[in-house]
Amino acid sequence: MAKELTPRKESYSQWYQDLVIKADLAENSAVRGCMVIKPYGYAIWEKMQAELDRMFKETGHVNAYFPLFIPKSFFSKEANHVEGFAKECAVVTHYRLKNDEVNGGVMVDPDAKLEEELIIRPTSETIIWNTYRNWIQSHRDLPLLINQWANVVRWEMRTRLFLRTAEFLWQEGHTAHATKQEAVDETIKILNVYADFAENFMAVPVITGLKSENERFAGAVDTYSIEALMQDGKALQSGTSHFLGQNFAKAFDVKFTNKEGREELVWATSWGVSTRLMGALIMAHSDDNGLVLPPKLAPFQVVIVPIYKKAEQLELITKKVDVIINELKAKGISVKFDNNDNKKPGWKFAEYELKGVPVRLAIGPRDLENGTVEVARRDTLEKNVVNIEGIDDYIQKLLNEIQQNIYQKALDFRTENTTKVDSYDEFKEVLKNKGGFILAHWDGTPETEEKIKQETKATIRNIPLESEKEEGKCIYSGKPSKQRVLFATAY
Amino acid sequence: MAKELTPRKESYSQWYQDLVIKADLAENSAVRGCMVIKPYGYAIWEKMQAELDRMFKETGHVNAYFPLFIPKSFFSKEANHVEGFAKECAVVTHYRLKNDEVNGGVMVDPDAKLEEELIIRPTSETIIWNTYRNWIQSHRDLPLLINQWANVVRWEMRTRLFLRTAEFLWQEGHTAHATKQEAVDETIKILNVYADFAENFMAVPVITGLKSENERFAGAVDTYSIEALMQDGKALQSGTSHFLGQNFAKAFDVKFTNKEGREELVWATSWGVSTRLMGALIMAHSDDNGLVLPPKLAPFQVVIVPIYKKAEQLELITKKVDVIINELKAKGISVKFDNNDNKKPGWKFAEYELKGVPVRLAIGPRDLENGTVEVARRDTLEKNVVNIEGIDDYIQKLLNEIQQNIYQKALDFRTENTTKVDSYDEFKEVLKNKGGFILAHWDGTPETEEKIKQETKATIRNIPLESEKEEGKCIYSGKPSKQRVLFATAY
Repeated sequence: MAKELTPRKESYSQWYQDLVIKADLAENSAVRGCMVIKPYGYAIWEKMQAELDRMFKETGHVNAYFPLFIPKSFFSKEANHVEGFAKECAVVTHYRLKNDEVNGGVMVDPDAKLEEELIIRPTSETIIWNTYRNWIQSHRDLPLLINQWANVVRWEMRTRLFLRTAEFLWQEGHTAHATKQEAVDETIKILNVYADFAENFMAVPVITGLKSENERFAGAVDTYSIEALMQDGKALQSGTSHFLGQNFAKAFDVKFTNKEGREELVWATSWGVSTRLMGALIMAHSDDNGLVLPPKLAPFQVVIVPIYKKAEQLELITKKVDVIINELKAKGISVKFDNNDNKKPGWKFAEYELKGVPVRLAIGPRDLENGTVEVARRDTLEKNVVNIEGIDDYIQKLLNEIQQNIYQKALDFRTENTTKVDSYDEFKEVLKNKGGFILAHWDGTPETEEKIKQETKATIRNIPLESEKEEGKCIYSGKPSKQRVLFATAY
Repeated sequence: MAKELTPRKESYSQWYQDLVIKADLAENSAVRGCMVIKPYGYAIWEKMQAELDRMFKETGHVNAYFPLFIPKSFFSKEANHVEGFAKECAVVTHYRLKNDEVNGGVMVDPDAKLEEELIIRPTSETIIWNTYRNWIQSHRDLPLLINQWANVVRWEMRTRLFLRTAEFLWQEGHTAHATKQEAVDETIKILNVYADFAENFMAVPVITGLKSENERFAGAVDTYSIEALMQDGKALQSGTSHFLGQNFAKAFDVKFTNKEGREELVWATSWGVSTRLMGALIMAHSDDNGLVLPPKLAPFQVVIVPIYKKAEQLELITKKVDVIINELKAKGISVKFDNNDNKKPGWKFAEYELKGVPVRLAIGPRDLENGTVEVARRDTLEKNVVNIEGIDDYIQKLLNEIQQNIYQKALDFRTENTTKVDSYDEFKEVLKNKGGFILAHWDGTPETEEKIKQETKATIRNIPLESEKEEGKCIYSGKPSKQRVLFATAY
């Protein structure tokens, strides 16, 4: 087995790295911190995009496209944005190359220096709100419910494929509203779309909640997130939705005339998920044999491997397989028939396990005689011999069952690895020996959160929206608290 | 009418500019040369993308994603590529901003200078072939049939919305093959996909052909193009497909072991279409009232406008309209019901004409009594009163008819504006007074083409693949020629 993975127990991070590379999802490129998303990985991302795009459109959003470049001065317009936002950005200073007469090749033409430097967008609030100024005059122009699929760049120093890369792909929604309530409702609506997508398509249970002040997006009034738990007990922030108040409207002078004829500043939200979701998907479900993909996001849901020695056998098998393929396709099930003659069935079995194909069918001469097929499911690795008659219904049910089972397994894992603690000692002990989500009381101050972070590396992931109110005392300061918050070490 | 367009006769280029802006397709951004693609324009581009993506996948291609950045040194590796390719590129030299303590705001951190500058991709052959080196060892790894949807940047000095912008969106296919013949076949296959898309979806007839040496892509052995004729008699190159030979394999050392166990260089193609297609679509069909969209690419194909005075009337109309909408949707027809109370029907009629919606239905109280609806088609501006019973079938047929009619109109225009000439005087006279495509004999030399270009601004658009062989004499040099080539002034 050339493609063996480092076992998770040995090194979870090496296992992840191995898996991403060996399952042909992505690899590092020649450009520091930038990845190449390979066809199999990109096919999963396309499935994610298609579902999210459908969900955005069903909730009234439309797509548009704004420039890759942002003039440097735009960043200074919203005080908190520039203060809090990472300054690690790619900066364009010149617009021409020329032949290098001395050394050969090309060099940057010193005569082609830009008057004002351009920043590759790390996020697009500034350029978009600068544009919205011209689009919004009256309350009749509102709401604007716009999304963009784009690449963004943040010059991260320590990168990991999908989880943190200098360039990544994402969607960023930027909406404009006439009232505060509408903007707050939109923020929560999208948070719920993200949670719905994570749970029902990615099969990853998430906790929706409000970010603490320390972790708030620079320029936001409130930031909400969905937080997922990975198998190594660390949290992964998988999407954020921001209520921006009137901050960007103020910075870019975006006003509208309300129904009463008075001028008001516009209310804003922004929200995004990125190729980081690929990291969440991979880490939440996969095992030491490779990827485990939820059927709803698998590039193909079923693979069929013929077992044969002679060409005549393959011919007979192929005839039967063609029938099965047509039946499956008629049910909307995607299927690949791997009749590649260069590889043995055993190699193929391992390969499709590595790639996380939810269902594998194997069919040989004896199956033809018996009218059966061997069905193997990726999630449990169980095998069953099943009648070919009615195989389409069987597989349709099986795919639903796998989708459910993967979710349930991740949910059970999270339940087992969520601990309520009531003292700081207990907190540190759980963090050290068990990891996972920790629900604990907190006094609500940035100072306490910062100290806990410094001492333990754990941060408040969010203040869950759905947890019960409960009186208690902050595990660190002993001051009163009204609700447990979600702590974890995080990616 | 606030949104009146400059008539085409008065100024074709102003008409185009007006139309793009007033139909809410795109606008210039705060960043020089970069456009904002507005939601209505982006919805058309999404339709184009979806069809092209389907066609690419049906011909065996998969999508992937490569970095936005290309190390400067990569450009020097393929000699013709660096020599011939425009050097107007955006150059990233720094990776961090810092607070400007003196002037406020942010400044580029001089300590964060990159060792090697990064170029924003103007096209991705170099970074992709650098990647392919690691993906290809054996003939079993071939062919690689990969496409990428991406943004690219070329620092154009004179920009026009969609037609020529500093940043634009496109797809770029990059394929790798074991034999020359396979790569040549791929180049032609994609050229035909482009022609199919242009003619059957955009309703724009195109001439497929080989580019002359002067107009060849830098680094290609052969460049093929599809060329469309705009209403002002100028040609628009709408897509290119390149046979790259082994040039990039040589530059990036990409070799494979063939079936006989010998090492060989890999054969390559690349091909692309961009948001420039939006320009072609707009200019090929539209009129002084606005856009004319082919039904297959219209964001919505039918708009329904209620005609009423009282709320009770609207209620009754809406009931009927709901039935019509369901019938249309069941046939896969996209429809918008504009019951906005702030605008008068006349305003709406003009607005949807401007936006090129193929079919408009108007329905008022008298229609309800008679069981009729008024149907207006955008392409001919004809109106008919039609029975509501069976309206779905009627409209389905009508949409097909409109799609055909728009294509036929463009084809007739092209036929009328394609002239065979046999002397240079005639050539210049047609160019000056009629414009359009000119079929003329050419001696095959770059020198002659260059002189004609200098004297007339006309270029060889391509050497048509489907024209008959015909002996003749070059209109400029009098030397023998075996085939007429396609001349025009071009965008």
